[in-house]
Amino acid sequence: MKRHTVALAGASGYTGMEVLRIAISHPGISITELYGASSAGKTIQELVPAFEGYYDLFIHHMSSIADTKADAVIMALPHGESAALVDALLANGYKGKIVDIGSDHRSDCRAIYGLVEAFRDSLLGADFVANPGCFATAIQLGVKPLSDAGLIDQAFVTGVTGSSGSGATPSSTTHSSSRIGNLKAYKVFEHQHLDEIRHTVGVPVHFVPVSGPFVRGIWITIQATLNQEADVDALFANAYGSSPMVRLRQGLPELKPVIGTNFADIGWVVQGNHIVVGVAIDNLGKGAAGQALQNLNLMLGLPETTGLLTPPQLL
Amino acid sequence: MKRHTVALAGASGYTGMEVLRIAISHPGISITELYGASSAGKTIQELVPAFEGYYDLFIHHMSSIADTKADAVIMALPHGESAALVDALLANGYKGKIVDIGSDHRSDCRAIYGLVEAFRDSLLGADFVANPGCFATAIQLGVKPLSDAGLIDQAFVTGVTGSSGSGATPSSTTHSSSRIGNLKAYKVFEHQHLDEIRHTVGVPVHFVPVSGPFVRGIWITIQATLNQEADVDALFANAYGSSPMVRLRQGLPELKPVIGTNFADIGWVVQGNHIVVGVAIDNLGKGAAGQALQNLNLMLGLPETTGLLTPPQLL
Amino acid sequence: MKRHTVALAGASGYTGMEVLRIAISHPGISITELYGASSAGKTIQELVPAFEGYYDLFIHHMSSIADTKADAVIMALPHGESAALVDALLANGYKGKIVDIGSDHRSDCRAIYGLVEAFRDSLLGADFVANPGCFATAIQLGVKPLSDAGLIDQAFVTGVTGSSGSGATPSSTTHSSSRIGNLKAYKVFEHQHLDEIRHTVGVPVHFVPVSGPFVRGIWITIQATLNQEADVDALFANAYGSSPMVRLRQGLPELKPVIGTNFADIGWVVQGNHIVVGVAIDNLGKGAAGQALQNLNLMLGLPETTGLLTPPQLL
Amino acid sequence: MKRHTVALAGASGYTGMEVLRIAISHPGISITELYGASSAGKTIQELVPAFEGYYDLFIHHMSSIADTKADAVIMALPHGESAALVDALLANGYKGKIVDIGSDHRSDCRAIYGLVEAFRDSLLGADFVANPGCFATAIQLGVKPLSDAGLIDQAFVTGVTGSSGSGATPSSTTHSSSRIGNLKAYKVFEHQHLDEIRHTVGVPVHFVPVSGPFVRGIWITIQATLNQEADVDALFANAYGSSPMVRLRQGLPELKPVIGTNFADIGWVVQGNHIVVGVAIDNLGKGAAGQALQNLNLMLGLPETTGLLTPPQLL
Repeated sequence: MKRHTVALAGASGYTGMEVLRIAISHPGISITELYGASSAGKTIQELVPAFEGYYDLFIHHMSSIADTKADAVIMALPHGESAALVDALLANGYKGKIVDIGSDHRSDCRAIYGLVEAFRDSLLGADFVANPGCFATAIQLGVKPLSDAGLIDQAFVTGVTGSSGSGATPSSTTHSSSRIGNLKAYKVFEHQHLDEIRHTVGVPVHFVPVSGPFVRGIWITIQATLNQEADVDALFANAYGSSPMVRLRQGLPELKPVIGTNFADIGWVVQGNHIVVGVAIDNLGKGAAGQALQNLNLMLGLPETTGLLTPPQLL
Repeated sequence: MKRHTVALAGASGYTGMEVLRIAISHPGISITELYGASSAGKTIQELVPAFEGYYDLFIHHMSSIADTKADAVIMALPHGESAALVDALLANGYKGKIVDIGSDHRSDCRAIYGLVEAFRDSLLGADFVANPGCFATAIQLGVKPLSDAGLIDQAFVTGVTGSSGSGATPSSTTHSSSRIGNLKAYKVFEHQHLDEIRHTVGVPVHFVPVSGPFVRGIWITIQATLNQEADVDALFANAYGSSPMVRLRQGLPELKPVIGTNFADIGWVVQGNHIVVGVAIDNLGKGAAGQALQNLNLMLGLPETTGLLTPPQLL
Repeated sequence: MKRHTVALAGASGYTGMEVLRIAISHPGISITELYGASSAGKTIQELVPAFEGYYDLFIHHMSSIADTKADAVIMALPHGESAALVDALLANGYKGKIVDIGSDHRSDCRAIYGLVEAFRDSLLGADFVANPGCFATAIQLGVKPLSDAGLIDQAFVTGVTGSSGSGATPSSTTHSSSRIGNLKAYKVFEHQHLDEIRHTVGVPVHFVPVSGPFVRGIWITIQATLNQEADVDALFANAYGSSPMVRLRQGLPELKPVIGTNFADIGWVVQGNHIVVGVAIDNLGKGAAGQALQNLNLMLGLPETTGLLTPPQLL
Repeated sequence: MKRHTVALAGASGYTGMEVLRIAISHPGISITELYGASSAGKTIQELVPAFEGYYDLFIHHMSSIADTKADAVIMALPHGESAALVDALLANGYKGKIVDIGSDHRSDCRAIYGLVEAFRDSLLGADFVANPGCFATAIQLGVKPLSDAGLIDQAFVTGVTGSSGSGATPSSTTHSSSRIGNLKAYKVFEHQHLDEIRHTVGVPVHFVPVSGPFVRGIWITIQATLNQEADVDALFANAYGSSPMVRLRQGLPELKPVIGTNFADIGWVVQGNHIVVGVAIDNLGKGAAGQALQNLNLMLGLPETTGLLTPPQLL
C-alpha cells in the first residue's frame, strides 16, 4: 500500500500523541512532518521517549505549516488555534486533505462534520473535515437513531469522562489529589459540545458532564421516554449494521473494552415505554484521534477501518 | 453523658467495621458486645489490627445474641440473616432498641423505616428501625422534595457506587483488575432498593446503578421535567432546613467532601422546566453505619448529630 | 480543658487544611486566626465548603501575623516563606509557641527538631519547633533504632508517596493522567530531606523517592545488613515502648491503616543477617499536620496524644 | 509470511487473554485451538466479547490437548496444572514447540529457561521452553549485568506489582476496596520466583514484593554496593546492545511507557560506590505473554520482535 504523507500540528498534546501512536500501525499513512508551539525545536522522541524507534521527527514551528507539501494535515490543537492555520493553508493554495480535531470548524460550512456513522457518504473523498468532540460523538451515536425515528422528545444524559479529556496542561481539575476517589459535575446543561449536538440531533439533550477518577474513556447513560412502541433492537441494528467501528452490546456496555480502540460500544435496556442507552468510547480514540484517522481513511479513499482494528488492552 | 451499651451483630463486615469506627468518637454509646458468624471466637483487634487500643472485644457466636442485656442491638448483616435473629430477640422479650442496617425488615410493618429526614418524628423513641439502603437513601433524599410537591411525574437517575458497597466478600465485580479504570452498569431498572424507594417516593424512578473505580461513596444525578413553575431553592431549604446532616450546595455536589462522614450533600441546577438534582453520600456513612447511629440517637433520645459531626478527610 | 488559641499561616494549602481538620476534634486548642497569601480576604468556609459549620474564620494577609496575640503559631508554608515571618514574630517580641511545619528552620539552631519519638524531652515546653519532613519522619523512625544500636552501616531505602505530598499547586507530576497507573522515581539519592536525616541518623541512607498512584500516605522499605546478632524485636519494643503514636506490627505494615491518622506503623522481617524495616505514615498526618499538633501538645504541656487518636477510615 | 498454528491452553485467564490479544497483530502465528478447564464448551468470544471479530474459536476440554496437531502449544495455566499436560503431549509423540508460561518447568532440565536476553542462543530453534516469572524477569534483567561482571555481592530489591499479577480469581488481596489507595508487602524474602533467580544470578537477592494500587505492571528498584570502579553505562550498553526488547533509559524508568508492550525499560543512578537500577515491565507482557511469544519467535526461527513492537498506550 502506498503511504500518504501526513503533517500533524500539535504533536505534544494528548490528542496529537494519540494520532502518532495509532499511525504507527496504520499501513496507509505515514506521519512525516510535525508542527508545534512550545514544543518546536525539539524532536518528538526527546519529548516522548516511548516513541524512540518509532519516530525520528523534528518539530517545526507551527507558523511554517502553511508551506507543507504533505498529502494531508491533521490539526490537534486547543480551541481557537487552528482557525488561522487553516486559513493560511487555504490561502496558500493547499490541495491536500485537512482534518481539524479541534473545535474551530465544527460549525464552519466549508468543513464537513466528521461523525462518520451519520455522514459517511459526504466524507468519502472530502477535502476538509471538522472532527466531532468527544462527548458529542458519544451522545450523538446514542441519541440519533432514536431521535431520527421520532421515538423520543428529549434525552436525559449523564456522562463521565477521564482526566485525559482535559488535555496535558495541569489544572486543579486534573490534580490527582482532587480527582482520585472523586466525582464532580461541571458545565451542567452548558457543555460546549451541545452546539454541535444540536445540529445533528433533533431533540433537546439535557447533559450533565462529570469528571471521573480514571484517565481514558467516556461512558454515558441516555435516558428517555419512548413515545410509541418500537423495535429498538432492529432500529440500532439498522442504524449501525454497516458501521464497523460501532459494536452493539447486550445491555449497557462496559468502559474498559473500548479503551485504546476506535470502537464505540452501544447497548440499551427497555422497560415499558422507558429506555436507557449506554455508550462507551475512548475519548482519545473514537472521541478524537481515532475518529480523525477514520475520517482521513474515507477522505483518502481507504477502507474505513484501515489501521483502526487494534484490539483493546482489556486489563 | 451516660453511655448506652450496644451489641453489634456482624462485626467483621464493612458496615460493622464502620459502626465500630464511628462509635469510637460517639460520647453517648459504647459498643460492648460483638456477634459474628465466621469471625466468632476471635477478638475484633485480631481481625482488624487498626482497632487495637480502641477496642478489646471478643466476638461471640451470632446465635447467643438473643440473650443480650445491652441497651441496643445493631444488625449489620447480609440479606436474609437478620430476620431470624430479630424474631429470637423479640421472642426472648428483649426490651432494648433494635436497628437493622440490612434489608430484611425494610417492608416489615413492625419496623419504622429509618430515613431520618423523612420520618424523624416517628423515629424519636422508636424501638425497632429498619435502616434504608445506600442507593435508596441518596435517591429518596433527592427525589422526595420534588415528588412531595407534585413538581415531577418521574425521575431519571444514574448513580455510581464505590466497591465497598459490594461488601467484603471478593467477587469478579470487585476485583481491582476489572474495577480500576472501568465503569459498568448492573441491575439496570431492577435494583433491589427500588422497592423501598416506591414506599416513600410517589413517582416512578428509572434507576441505572453503576460500579465505579473508587472505594467509598455514592454519587447520583436525578434528572426530571418540572411540570410547573417552582422555587426549587425554597423547596429544598424548607425540606432540609431543620436536618443537620443534609448540606445544601450551590450546583451539584462533589463526592469527596462527604467521604468518611454522615452528611448528604445535595445540589441542583434548573434550566427552563428541566432540573437535575445531585446527591453525594458515603455509602458506609449516611448510606449505612452513620445513618444507623443517627437513628439510634433519635431512638435513645440523644441529639440527632451526636457522634456524627466528624469532618471529612477532604484528601 | 481550657483551649489554647492558635494562629495558622497557610490555611489553604493541603497541610494547613489538615491542621484545620484535625484541630476540630482537638479539645485543647482552638484555631482562632488564619493567615494566607493568595487566599487572604476570603473566609476559610468559602474556600473549603466542607469546613462550613466547623469554622467561621476570615483569612488575614500573611504580613499581619507578626502582631498575633494567639498562644501559638503554626506555619504551614512552602519552602522559603516562613523564615522572614518567624523573624518578624521574634523581633516583635512574640512570647507564644511556634511550630514551623515547613522546611525553613530544620537546621536552625534556635528551633528544636520536632521528631517526637527521638527528642521528646527537649520538646516538652519548647517555644520553637521545626517539624520534620514527611519522608524524613518515616525514614528516621525506621532507621534510628538500628543505627543508634550500631547494628547497620548503611540503609537502602525505597519510599513511595501519594500525590498530596506535592501540595495543591497543579503540576505535570500530579496530573492524574500521568499519575494513575504509574510509578516514577524522582530526586534519586538527592531528596532534600536527606539533610535533616543526616543530623539524627549516623549511617549513610541511600534513598529512592517514588511518586505513587494514590493521594495520601508514605510507605517505605529500609533494607540493611546486620553487622552482629541482635534481638530486633526487643530493640524496637524498647525504642518505641513509650511512644503512643508508633504502632509496632507483625511483618511489614500496610499503608491504609494509617491514612487519616497520626500513627506511624513500623514492622520488620529478619532473615539471617539481613533485615527489612517497613514504615507507613500519612504524609499529611504524622508526616506534617498531625506531628505538628503532637509537638504543640508537648510544647503546651498537654498529653502527647491529645486530639490525635481519631481512628482511620480503614476503607 | 506463512503462519504457524498455535494451540493455547488456559484461554480465559489473564495471561491467556493477553496471548490472544498480542497474537492478533502477530503476522507469523495464528492461534487456531483453545483449551480450557472451567471455560471448556464455550467460545472465546462469548467469554470475552471484546474478542468478537478477532476470534471465532471454541474452547476444548484441556485433556484433549495431547492430540493437537498445531505447530506449537502455549500453556498459560496456574501452578501445578501444566506438568501432566506436557507429559501427555510428549508421551503422545508431539513434535511441535512447547512454551510453558506457568511455573511447572522452570527447574525442569528438559526445558530451556526462556529469559531471552540471557539465553538467546539456546532458545533459537528450541523445542521446549519454560517462560520466566514476571518478578523474576524484571529482577534478573536488572541484576545479571552487575553480578556477571562481579561488581556486586548482593542486591536489595523492592518491587511493586499490579493486581493482574494475581490472576483472574477474586481474592481479598485483589478486592479493590483493599487495593485502591494501599501498599502491602507479601512473601517478604520468600517469593517463589527467588528459586529461578538463583539459577541465573550468582549473588543473594533480598526481595520485598509489594501489591500496588494499579492493574498492570511491575516496577522495581535494585540497590547495591559496587565493590570496584566500573563503567556501568558501558556494562548495560554491552549487555543489552543487541536486545531489541530492552530499552536503556536515562535515570530510573517510569512504569507507564511499558504498559501494554513487551519492552523492559532499564535505567540506573550511581552515586559513589552505590547504585540503584530500576526496571519496568508489563507483568502480562514481558513478564508473561509477550515474552512467551518472543521465545516462540526464536523457537520458530522468526525475528525476535515479530508481532511485539506495538507501541504503548502512554495514557
